[in-house]
Amino acid sequence: MSFPARGFPKSEFESRTRRAQDAMAEQDLSAILLTTEPDIRYFTGFLTRFWESPTRPWYLVLPASGPPIAVIPSIGAALMATTWISDIRTWRAPDLTDDGIGLLADTLVEVAGPAGRIGTPMGHETLARMPLADLKRLEALLSPRVLSDDGWIVKRQRQIKSPAEIDKIEAACRIADRAFARLPEIVRVGVPLADVFRKFQILCLEEGADWVPYLAGGAGQGGYADVISPATETPLASGDILMLDTGLVWDGYFCDFDRNVAVERADAASMAAHAKLIEAVDAAMAIAKPGARACDLFHAMDRIVTGGAGGSDAGRLGHGLGMQLTEVPSLIPADRTELAEGMVLTLEPGIETGDGRIMVHEENIVVTADGARMLSTPCGSDLRVI
Amino acid sequence: MSFPARGFPKSEFESRTRRAQDAMAEQDLSAILLTTEPDIRYFTGFLTRFWESPTRPWYLVLPASGPPIAVIPSIGAALMATTWISDIRTWRAPDLTDDGIGLLADTLVEVAGPAGRIGTPMGHETLARMPLADLKRLEALLSPRVLSDDGWIVKRQRQIKSPAEIDKIEAACRIADRAFARLPEIVRVGVPLADVFRKFQILCLEEGADWVPYLAGGAGQGGYADVISPATETPLASGDILMLDTGLVWDGYFCDFDRNVAVERADAASMAAHAKLIEAVDAAMAIAKPGARACDLFHAMDRIVTGGAGGSDAGRLGHGLGMQLTEVPSLIPADRTELAEGMVLTLEPGIETGDGRIMVHEENIVVTADGARMLSTPCGSDLRVI
Repeated sequence: MSFPARGFPKSEFESRTRRAQDAMAEQDLSAILLTTEPDIRYFTGFLTRFWESPTRPWYLVLPASGPPIAVIPSIGAALMATTWISDIRTWRAPDLTDDGIGLLADTLVEVAGPAGRIGTPMGHETLARMPLADLKRLEALLSPRVLSDDGWIVKRQRQIKSPAEIDKIEAACRIADRAFARLPEIVRVGVPLADVFRKFQILCLEEGADWVPYLAGGAGQGGYADVISPATETPLASGDILMLDTGLVWDGYFCDFDRNVAVERADAASMAAHAKLIEAVDAAMAIAKPGARACDLFHAMDRIVTGGAGGSDAGRLGHGLGMQLTEVPSLIPADRTELAEGMVLTLEPGIETGDGRIMVHEENIVVTADGARMLSTPCGSDLRVI
Repeated sequence: MSFPARGFPKSEFESRTRRAQDAMAEQDLSAILLTTEPDIRYFTGFLTRFWESPTRPWYLVLPASGPPIAVIPSIGAALMATTWISDIRTWRAPDLTDDGIGLLADTLVEVAGPAGRIGTPMGHETLARMPLADLKRLEALLSPRVLSDDGWIVKRQRQIKSPAEIDKIEAACRIADRAFARLPEIVRVGVPLADVFRKFQILCLEEGADWVPYLAGGAGQGGYADVISPATETPLASGDILMLDTGLVWDGYFCDFDRNVAVERADAASMAAHAKLIEAVDAAMAIAKPGARACDLFHAMDRIVTGGAGGSDAGRLGHGLGMQLTEVPSLIPADRTELAEGMVLTLEPGIETGDGRIMVHEENIVVTADGARMLSTPCGSDLRVI
């Protein structure tokens, strides 16, 4: 299997930055403060698994023009210097007295000037990855300037993927495709579900995943109870419906799709449920094009899996996908986000199969100028038997 | 290899809750709001990789007495119901109008009463995993009650591990030990570092890791440039010093240690540097007992690796370890945390080897009543050659 090039050309980061700055100008923002891994990576290319350590805060300041400024712990300076960012300001974290806040406030004041507005993501699906006490300290240092909402500029912009980003997501999908194709190597009656989970992660790595941040699933007669539980030691039984849902990463981009298989034999109800799930995915695919709305895709699938109940406890029937396992928009009745070329989405209909059991199917697609294209290799209607 | 039992008895969660409630009483707090994965898992046992999805907020309310109350998306209700928590309040997330904030405010008001103080973690190494706009909305709904700092109650308490927690961390260490023992299977001149990373994760899974959230490292003549960079495609060369640093998870608990090996042959300078790193670890081990302070361990190691320079860009020479890859305390000059029985720490001295290169060694220890015990199998002074 051939993979696309790693990383991005400098021009891609320049273009991302300029687009954000155009939106900042419209909203009269002189600076945006970013604190999370995907937001900082999106504008810099700073890719490291070190974010797994919650100790240190990392900050990036987007000015009204010119490249972003990194305000980061000195342990990250060498790696940040390999990106296109040249203005890198560091402190020796952790510092129990001032963990970068003085340096950050100085930078923001310098960038925003005496009267500039400073934004930071505050809306749905965002968070400030820093202690609340430090946020308060920062606000005090910035006063009379007020830290305000960034107007979802970054979140909205990240919804539209560049061709290079789509290539990376597709590479992640291809890796998962190949791992799923090898399920017969690890699925057998009597194998504990926890072993299947462990071995499936190995298959993902063998096929080229950089790492496997997410794996969920379930197994049971006629379906499974939920889709977020960790694996148990319960052995697979003949007739079980096994579902594995993986979010593996290649060069910092996720896939997120699942496969259902029947162990040894498939019962008629599960086969019918699976066919309905595929029918729902096909219905969403048929209307997924620029101008359609996230809620339209929801309803197209919901009509088929529930007859139009309008929602379920799972909450949504798909979502955005990219640098994070799940991104905006959400395929729910209330999300009226208009689809646009370059959006990568999951289609994830679920169906109740009785006795508190469900089956969920998921594919990954990209919206193109004249429709949608599958990034995962589409699963046929027939429930696969292993 | 035999593993301890998974999960914890209900009594452990009851005891954790009671201890937090004792501290809450001292600080006159009627409720604590928790929002992060480890904090919520610590009091409930709610273990899922679903936190990888940033979409949904999850809330837990610790009352002044009695079990915690979960305020969570309905997609998590089935899994939460398998824990000892019985008061589970749900909404269908994501909800673009009110993503659980009304329900959360009602719960906090009910628990805290008209005049009760409500705390949430705000200090060093904490964050609020929820949108800032939702935090403001919550504060408005709680008014005139003020959301105040929890006084680091939860962070401080989580530093001391129970015997069952230590068993899980030790299980993770044993798995990593065995993966490191198998390095000769994957380390060879000409193998790209990225392949070594991928295969080492496979070894960790084969040896029993549930998943491998963290792997970092480096390779080069006489050391490596930093310890947080992702792997490159550069092939291993004869004489390279290869370092792999893994944080794998078993039943929700991390190990975090590394190993340095020389590829084919070890140069004298790297051998001497390695011996000094082990000497530093031994010096810290010798004084790691209840009553010693985090800073004492720092100085014991710093004297040996730098002659007492007092700090470096890496910022610290070790840290707490447990449900997260890194936890408080920090082994830095400013951290005067007193060690106590049950604390699990990493000892992580680094040494400059010239030309901007470093070597870092790391072990995991637990503080006992009369000293410290290694959880990782201690590495001898001799630099291993593969």
